[in-house]
Amino acid sequence: MHILIIGAAGMVGRKLTAALVKAGRVAGRDISKLTLADMVQPERPAFSGAVETVAADLSAAGAAAKLVARRPDLIFHLAAIVSGEAEADFDKGYRINLDGTRFLLEAIRQEGLTSPYVPKLVFTSSIAVFGAPFPEAIGDEFFSTPLTSYGTQKAICELLLNDYSRRGFVDGIGIRLPTIVIRPGKPNLAASGFFSNILREPLAGQEAVLPVSKDVRHWFASPRAAVGFLIHAAELDTQKLGWRRTLSAPGLSTTVGEEIEALRRVAGERAVSLIREIPDEKIIRIVEGWARNFDTCRAAALGFKAETSFDEIIRIHIEDELGGKIGG
Amino acid sequence: MHILIIGAAGMVGRKLTAALVKAGRVAGRDISKLTLADMVQPERPAFSGAVETVAADLSAAGAAAKLVARRPDLIFHLAAIVSGEAEADFDKGYRINLDGTRFLLEAIRQEGLTSPYVPKLVFTSSIAVFGAPFPEAIGDEFFSTPLTSYGTQKAICELLLNDYSRRGFVDGIGIRLPTIVIRPGKPNLAASGFFSNILREPLAGQEAVLPVSKDVRHWFASPRAAVGFLIHAAELDTQKLGWRRTLSAPGLSTTVGEEIEALRRVAGERAVSLIREIPDEKIIRIVEGWARNFDTCRAAALGFKAETSFDEIIRIHIEDELGGKIGG
Repeated sequence: MHILIIGAAGMVGRKLTAALVKAGRVAGRDISKLTLADMVQPERPAFSGAVETVAADLSAAGAAAKLVARRPDLIFHLAAIVSGEAEADFDKGYRINLDGTRFLLEAIRQEGLTSPYVPKLVFTSSIAVFGAPFPEAIGDEFFSTPLTSYGTQKAICELLLNDYSRRGFVDGIGIRLPTIVIRPGKPNLAASGFFSNILREPLAGQEAVLPVSKDVRHWFASPRAAVGFLIHAAELDTQKLGWRRTLSAPGLSTTVGEEIEALRRVAGERAVSLIREIPDEKIIRIVEGWARNFDTCRAAALGFKAETSFDEIIRIHIEDELGGKIGG
Repeated sequence: MHILIIGAAGMVGRKLTAALVKAGRVAGRDISKLTLADMVQPERPAFSGAVETVAADLSAAGAAAKLVARRPDLIFHLAAIVSGEAEADFDKGYRINLDGTRFLLEAIRQEGLTSPYVPKLVFTSSIAVFGAPFPEAIGDEFFSTPLTSYGTQKAICELLLNDYSRRGFVDGIGIRLPTIVIRPGKPNLAASGFFSNILREPLAGQEAVLPVSKDVRHWFASPRAAVGFLIHAAELDTQKLGWRRTLSAPGLSTTVGEEIEALRRVAGERAVSLIREIPDEKIIRIVEGWARNFDTCRAAALGFKAETSFDEIIRIHIEDELGGKIGG
């Protein structure tokens, strides 16, 4: 099986690549080749099969067609610019997040016009397709009314994925990822960054800023769970989805206060003492519009699994990023 | 006030033009100029103000920018190819129904970059954004899972309209029209054509074919009501909509059997006797996937009004199309 990962240099892309390399197979078939694409050339993993790394901008003319001409059996499309950037740069957001995905779908359709070709396509969508006001728990049939350009672009891609699948051009499945915690690496300026920062930094013995109230509730899964969703999606019989090809992944609905209590249990009082509460009105307002909880019956029935406690999310970070040891 | 109607040569476009010409004003302001655009040059109405008629393909390079450069205060965007054609010609559907609308929105944004310009934009969406399975009555927060490319294109345009409005580039409102009955003119091959044919033809003394069961239930409004929705939308304070800029218009949920009973009451037994029941499996299957009923609380609260009986819908046709007389 030949797998193409678009957005392979990102955090989820790298972890997905590592998981596929480790397993050596997916959906009961051996992986013979990996094509890894991103805006910057992805790192080459140590893999026994063929590996090609490609620097490509999916929104550039012909880029999608070139990737698809290799006829991968399975495509993971993870590439996107983030919410903040899509809001700050309207043109770039629509170009990368909407046109890039549409060009990919269209390249697949065009490739199939020459001789039959219907690859499986796993697309990462986002809970940003939902915008307030919404019910306390967002169900599987709640409508998409995004309050960001990023969420709009993702919601449009979901519709395209459905239609291209229904028409038989691609075998698509979309997964709306929860907010991923604990993101490894340095603190970033994303409005959601603090959810990770207040755990990752204290676990490394560093101070972190909490800009919102401890009552704030949000929807989370670990990077390991996110990779699990994508591989499960790749292995899923999409007939079970009908023509509603995107679903909200399971996750954990937790308050910031509960996050901190989990940190206390796993890493002790000293770690918690490194969190500085410095309210930031701008971030408080942004976060007010975010989803708090989901009712993901559909994903659960289809076998998707996420963490059930924040202690588990913290332990996964310690295992996967810190070599099993708490620093500081 | 300068009004631009895109899709002015279509059935709704012509009736909207006539209604605006007759009223002479909209939203409390006199109409000084009408620009009427369509793929074919629209007819020039007898209007005391300025009139310009334009043959333009909105999906052609520069066409939207040219229309928008005239800086209309109010734009009605009704142009689309119909469901059957968008399903038969994938490329054309996306080009006209998606790209055409996106080019219009983008032309408005670009025009506003030169000097402030935020026109009101009334967009006709469709109940085709909904796809089975759905509840008996589709509520205002039910999700869009279209089962046609046409419905997909309309759902995407709704998302774009929201985002361009939220970003302050346009003051948009979208109206999901019910199936319009009684469509004037000749019987056409649209799968929904029979809903009109079985009334219009007998009212003119002609035979008509009923291809589905009398139990089939669907969602209707008259052409007059549709024009009323569009003018009401143009006059509505969009602040009341928040960022959820598209709504399902009110309508009448009726079975084919009830349609026929209304025909009997208004036009007598002889008219009803002209309906031939000839089941068509293809149309039966298509119609099974269509919405049956809506719960349009939101539109009702905002003052949109539709017919409340099929007798009324038939009488409107007799008044507006037959000069008050039943033929045959």
